[in-house]
Amino acid sequence: MNDYSVKAIGIVRSGLKDLSQCPLQENENAPEALIEIFPEYEKGLADIKTGDMLILFTWLHLANRNEMATKPRNDPDAALTGVFSTRSPNRPNPVGIHFVKVISVVSNNKFSISGIEVLDKTPVIDIKPQI
Amino acid sequence: MNDYSVKAIGIVRSGLKDLSQCPLQENENAPEALIEIFPEYEKGLADIKTGDMLILFTWLHLANRNEMATKPRNDPDAALTGVFSTRSPNRPNPVGIHFVKVISVVSNNKFSISGIEVLDKTPVIDIKPQI
Repeated sequence: MNDYSVKAIGIVRSGLKDLSQCPLQENENAPEALIEIFPEYEKGLADIKTGDMLILFTWLHLANRNEMATKPRNDPDAALTGVFSTRSPNRPNPVGIHFVKVISVVSNNKFSISGIEVLDKTPVIDIKPQI
Repeated sequence: MNDYSVKAIGIVRSGLKDLSQCPLQENENAPEALIEIFPEYEKGLADIKTGDMLILFTWLHLANRNEMATKPRNDPDAALTGVFSTRSPNRPNPVGIHFVKVISVVSNNKFSISGIEVLDKTPVIDIKPQI
């Protein structure tokens, strides 16, 4: 009962092809990207439109899920900090959260968004409106 | 490769014992609650302190995961809306997101928080600082 299945509903298509290229946060010159939702979930996108402000949730699939403390911003001089007080991708459930704007709706299952710091092919797990 | 395991890292302890009692959003008179993190994840909480502004992620385990459109706020007169443009708990991955404040740290694995609309015993899956 303490373990659930989270399904990728789509994927991020980005020019960021290598982790070493990825900014740490979306407001650090992260590039625009295309969100491609798998056909079985496309009806859920019916009301997404240009200009919408969204919260995009990703699954940071390359994370180390056993880390409980980390040095923020990969700074070797930083104090070791409990992961729940950081935005490190390395955490028990590597959920990524991104506050983005819809730049354009490309098709029934694809839309482009403002800057996002994740790697190409990162799974998308949820989308909600900002309120 | 499109299916991942999300683990409950803890549980919400709330006076809300029945779904019919739950407000729709945290700013609608939702009650304070206690967050209890399981011992294996307690080191990740080491730097959480009173007054911290957090994003708490829950897993809305009672959700219907096959719903792709819904009537917002359970309003029968509302237009049917794609779930990714709503905050409905019924969605492919029922991730709950809650912007909360730490009221007090009770012990190494428990802290109380400002209003949250979820049911008692809802699983917690992640905690991040608001930035």
